[in-house]
Amino acid sequence: MILSHINDIAAVCAGHGIKTAVISPGSRSAPLTLAFDQHPGIDVKVIGDERSAAFIALGIAQQQRKTVVLICTSGSAVYNYAPAIAEAYYQEIPLMVLSADRPPEWTNQYDGQTIQQSGIFGKHVKGTYDLPVDVSHKDAMWHSNRTINEAINLSESAPHGPVHINVPLREPFYPGMGEKITFGQVRLIRQVDSAQTITENRWQELVQLWGAYQKRLIVIGQSEMDADLSKSLNSLAVKTGTPVITDIISNQQSLPDAIVNQDAILQSGRLEALARFSPELLITVGKSLISKNLKLFLRKFPPKSHWHIHHSDRINDTLQNLTHWVQIPANAFFSRLEKSVNSSVTSNFTNNWQATDGEAGSIVSKFIENTDFGEFQACYYCLKALPDNSQLHLANSMAVRYANLIGLKDKKNVMVFANRGTSGIDGSNGTAVGATLAQQSLVTLLTGDMAFFYDRNAFWHNYNLSNLRIILLNNHGGGIFRMINGPTNQPSYEKLFETEQPLNAENTAKDHGFEYYSCNDLDELKTHLKNFYTTGEKPKILEVFSDSKENARIMKSFKEMFTS
Amino acid sequence: MILSHINDIAAVCAGHGIKTAVISPGSRSAPLTLAFDQHPGIDVKVIGDERSAAFIALGIAQQQRKTVVLICTSGSAVYNYAPAIAEAYYQEIPLMVLSADRPPEWTNQYDGQTIQQSGIFGKHVKGTYDLPVDVSHKDAMWHSNRTINEAINLSESAPHGPVHINVPLREPFYPGMGEKITFGQVRLIRQVDSAQTITENRWQELVQLWGAYQKRLIVIGQSEMDADLSKSLNSLAVKTGTPVITDIISNQQSLPDAIVNQDAILQSGRLEALARFSPELLITVGKSLISKNLKLFLRKFPPKSHWHIHHSDRINDTLQNLTHWVQIPANAFFSRLEKSVNSSVTSNFTNNWQATDGEAGSIVSKFIENTDFGEFQACYYCLKALPDNSQLHLANSMAVRYANLIGLKDKKNVMVFANRGTSGIDGSNGTAVGATLAQQSLVTLLTGDMAFFYDRNAFWHNYNLSNLRIILLNNHGGGIFRMINGPTNQPSYEKLFETEQPLNAENTAKDHGFEYYSCNDLDELKTHLKNFYTTGEKPKILEVFSDSKENARIMKSFKEMFTS
Repeated sequence: MILSHINDIAAVCAGHGIKTAVISPGSRSAPLTLAFDQHPGIDVKVIGDERSAAFIALGIAQQQRKTVVLICTSGSAVYNYAPAIAEAYYQEIPLMVLSADRPPEWTNQYDGQTIQQSGIFGKHVKGTYDLPVDVSHKDAMWHSNRTINEAINLSESAPHGPVHINVPLREPFYPGMGEKITFGQVRLIRQVDSAQTITENRWQELVQLWGAYQKRLIVIGQSEMDADLSKSLNSLAVKTGTPVITDIISNQQSLPDAIVNQDAILQSGRLEALARFSPELLITVGKSLISKNLKLFLRKFPPKSHWHIHHSDRINDTLQNLTHWVQIPANAFFSRLEKSVNSSVTSNFTNNWQATDGEAGSIVSKFIENTDFGEFQACYYCLKALPDNSQLHLANSMAVRYANLIGLKDKKNVMVFANRGTSGIDGSNGTAVGATLAQQSLVTLLTGDMAFFYDRNAFWHNYNLSNLRIILLNNHGGGIFRMINGPTNQPSYEKLFETEQPLNAENTAKDHGFEYYSCNDLDELKTHLKNFYTTGEKPKILEVFSDSKENARIMKSFKEMFTS
Repeated sequence: MILSHINDIAAVCAGHGIKTAVISPGSRSAPLTLAFDQHPGIDVKVIGDERSAAFIALGIAQQQRKTVVLICTSGSAVYNYAPAIAEAYYQEIPLMVLSADRPPEWTNQYDGQTIQQSGIFGKHVKGTYDLPVDVSHKDAMWHSNRTINEAINLSESAPHGPVHINVPLREPFYPGMGEKITFGQVRLIRQVDSAQTITENRWQELVQLWGAYQKRLIVIGQSEMDADLSKSLNSLAVKTGTPVITDIISNQQSLPDAIVNQDAILQSGRLEALARFSPELLITVGKSLISKNLKLFLRKFPPKSHWHIHHSDRINDTLQNLTHWVQIPANAFFSRLEKSVNSSVTSNFTNNWQATDGEAGSIVSKFIENTDFGEFQACYYCLKALPDNSQLHLANSMAVRYANLIGLKDKKNVMVFANRGTSGIDGSNGTAVGATLAQQSLVTLLTGDMAFFYDRNAFWHNYNLSNLRIILLNNHGGGIFRMINGPTNQPSYEKLFETEQPLNAENTAKDHGFEYYSCNDLDELKTHLKNFYTTGEKPKILEVFSDSKENARIMKSFKEMFTS
C-alpha cells in the first residue's frame, strides 16, 4: 500500500533543502525508507549499526550545515541513536530522527520490537513529536504536514539541534505489485530568517564598558570555521591590540596573532604566578573549551566583566563569572564592535601574552622534537605533515588534548572537528566517516585505540572512504588515566582504569578495506608519512604503537618545563 | 578522598546478595569503581564498550537471577546502556545502573562529559533515583542508604527489571596516598517475601469455568527454565489431557507431550482450515511468543475464556481476547489447578493436536534432511548435535525462527535464552558472553551475520570465554527480508533491506582469540560438528555460509508443504 502522508515527509524534507537520509534496515520502517530512497532530491545512505549510523549522520550534517534525516525501525533500534543525539544536542547539529513505530495500541503487549518510543530522547532533543497513526481525516494530514515543517525549522533555528518524530505505522508496509511511489505537491512552511539585534542604547553600554578596561582578552571556544568571523575578529584584534586565545577546536588558529599555547602556559601548578595574564574584560565565544588549564585560570582570576557571545538560548557560565550574555551571531557582534571602538596601542598586557605565547611555542616544538618517541611526538609530526585545505577530526580523550597542545597555527584552511558536545569516545569514527561521505577534501582522524575500536561499526558498510586517513595512537588501553593524578596509585589500576586491550587495527583494516601501516619509532613514522596523505583508492590507517608509561613520563616532563 | 557513602553502596549491594558489577572505565566513576572492586563480596568485570557491557550484565543477571550492577562514567556513556536497559525492562531482568554524574550545577555548562542523566531511561526502568551530591548532613546519608535499598528491592520484585541511580560526584575522586577503602556496618532494608494468592471464592469461579469447557489449550511464552513449573504443568496435562504448546523460548519443550510444531502447523495461509484446533479455554503463560502463525491463529479464533498467568503488573493482551488476568507465579497456579480439577479422558481436540504435532514433526525432519544445504539444514544439524545440560542462545531475526521450527524436544536440560523483550539484534553476543562468564556449562549462540557484527564489541575484553560456541549463519546481509512478503519486489531491495555486508568472521575470530571453522555444505558442517562442542581452551566460531536466495527458496517450499 502507498502511504501518501509518508511520501509527503520526504517531499517536505527535500523542499526544505534536506539532501541526505541515513537509514538502517527494518521492515516497520519500509514506507519511510522507500519514500526517501525514491525521492530524487534525497541521497540515501544505508548503515547497519544504528549507533554508528547516527554519528555518521551527525558528521554529514556538520559538513552540510543542514538537517540530516535518520530513519530506523521500531524497538531498541532507535535507542542506539541516543549517544549521537546527545552529542548533536550539545554540539548544536541539526538532525531529524524518523523512528518507525508500532501504532500506540501495541505498546507493552509483548509483541516484537516495541518499546516506548514517544519522547524517548528526553531533554536531548529540541522537539519531539508523534505523527498520527490514522490519516483518514484531513486534519490528520494537516497535523502530519505541519509537524514535519515545524520539526525541520526547529532543528535549523539557532541553536541548531536534533528533533525526533515518532512515526506509528500499521501494516501493510510495502507497495503492492504495480503500485508506484509518486510525490505530489506538498505545502512548505518556511521560517523567515530574522535576527536578534542589540539596541543602540544597550550597545553603547557595552562600548563604554569596553573602553573602561585596559586588559581585554578574547577566548574562542568550539566554533565552525567562519571566514567572516575570522575577518571581523582580526580587524578588532589589530585595531585594539586585543589578544585572541584560540583552542584547536575554535577553527580560528590561523588568525595572524592567535594565541595557541594557552594550555602549556597556564599550567595549573603555577596558577599564582599567572595573575599578570588575567583580563579585566573577558569576551568568550562559542561552545566548549578543551584546555582545562585555561578554564581553571579564568575561574581563579575572575574578570571584572565577562561577556559570552553565543547565538543560543542556553546560558553558558562554565567560567562561573559571566556578567553579560549576548545572543547574537559572533561575527555580527565583532564587526559592530570593531566599528564602535577606538583604536588603541598595544598594551603591556597584550605584549605579555604575545611574547609568552611565542616563547611557549618554541619551547613546545623544541621539547617535542627532542623528546623520546611516543604519542606526543607522533602527533606533532602527523599534524605538521597535514595537508592544507583538508579536515582534521579529533577523538576525545588524549587525541584532542595532544592536538590542542601542538596547534595548527601554520596550516591553511584546515577545518577541525571534535565531538566536544558530550566529549564521549563513542562516535569519533562515525563522525569522520560522515565527513568523508559528505564532501571531497581529505579527512584525517586522530584517535586512540579505545575510541577507534569502540566505533568500529562506522566502517561496516559499502561506501567509498578513499579520502579518509586514520592516525591511531595505540597504547593498548586508556592512556589518559596515567596522565591525571589519582588513578595510577589505585589498586587494580590497569584493570579498572587503563582497560588493557589487546587489539591492533590490522584485522579491522583488512575487514574494511583500509591500507594499513604501523610504526614503533620516529623513522618508521616519517617514512610512512611521506605517502600517507596522498590520494589513493583506499582509505588508510597509520597505527602508532607506543608505551603508556613512557607517554605519561614524557607528558610529565613536558608539564614540568612550564611549572618549574 | 574516601567517600564513605559511595563505599556503603557496594556494601549494601553485597548485603543484598549482589555478586557482580560490570564496569566501564572512567574517571568520574572512580569512587564507585574502586568501592565495588575492593569489596570482597563483589566480582568486577571491566568492559570497554558500554553498549556491550550492559548486555553482558543482562546475560549475567539472567544466569544469577540476581541484580547485576552496571557502573559507568558521566556523559554519553550511560546512554549507550539504553538498548540493554529496554531489553531488561521487557524481558524482566534485574539490573542496577549506577551512573557517575557531575553535580547538578554543572549540567548544560559546556563542560566535558555532561548530559542530562537524571531520569534518562524514561519509562524503561522500574525506578529512577538521584543520590544527594552533598552528604554532610546525616539526612543525606539516610537518603542515600534508603535509596540503594529501595532500588535493589524494586529490581528484584516481580516483575524483575532495571533501575537507575544517578550518582553526582564532586572532585577529588581518588583516595589519597595511604588512604584505604574500608567497609563499615551498613543498614539493609529487606523486603519480606510475600505472595499474591487467589481467594477461594475467585478460585472456584476459575475451576468452574475450566469445567465448563471441553477444548482447553495451554500456551507457554518466554519463561525461565523452572523444574517445578514443568512438574505441575505435566501433572495437569496428564490428568486432564490438555495440550501444552511450547515455543522454543518457553523452556518447556522437554515436557513429555509438549506440542512444538505449532509454527509449521498453523500456517496463516490456511487459517480457515485450522478452526478445529481452536480452544474454548486458552491459558497463556509468561512473556512473548515467537510464532507469528500461532498468534495470528489465536487472534483469528478467539477462545471463549482466555486466562493469562504472569507474575507481573503489566497486562499482556497480545492476543486481543484476554478475559482473566492472573498475577501469581505460574507454578503456584498450575499446581493448585491440578489439585482442583477432575481428571478427564483425552478428548478428540487433544488427540487432534497430538497427532498433528507428531505428524508435523516427522514432516519437518524429513523435509530438512532432504532439502538442499542452507541455513535451515545447518541449524537442524547444529541443534541435533547440541549437548545436553548446556545453554542455547538465539539471536533475533532468522536464528530464533529457525530454532523455533526445529525445536529441542529430545534435548535434556538445555536452557534457552533470547532477547525477545524488544527483539533487537543489538545485544545477542553480549548476552551470550554474560552467560559464559556467569556459569560453567557450555553456551551455544546461534546467530546471523547482522547481529554478530553489530555486537562485536561484546568480545572486546580480556575474559576467558572458552565455553562459548558461536554458530554464525552468514548470508552476507539481512536474509529475513527475503522471507517476508513485500520487500523483495521493491526498488533497491538489496541496498535498503538486505544490507549486503561483505564481512566474514575470520578476522574477528583472530582478534578475539576464537578457534575458527567455516563451511559451505553439509559434509563440511558435519565434519566440524564432530568436535565443535567439545571442551577446549578457546571459544569457537563455526561460520556457515549460505545463499540468501536459496534460503528463501527452501523456506518457501517448506511453507508450501503445510499450506497445500
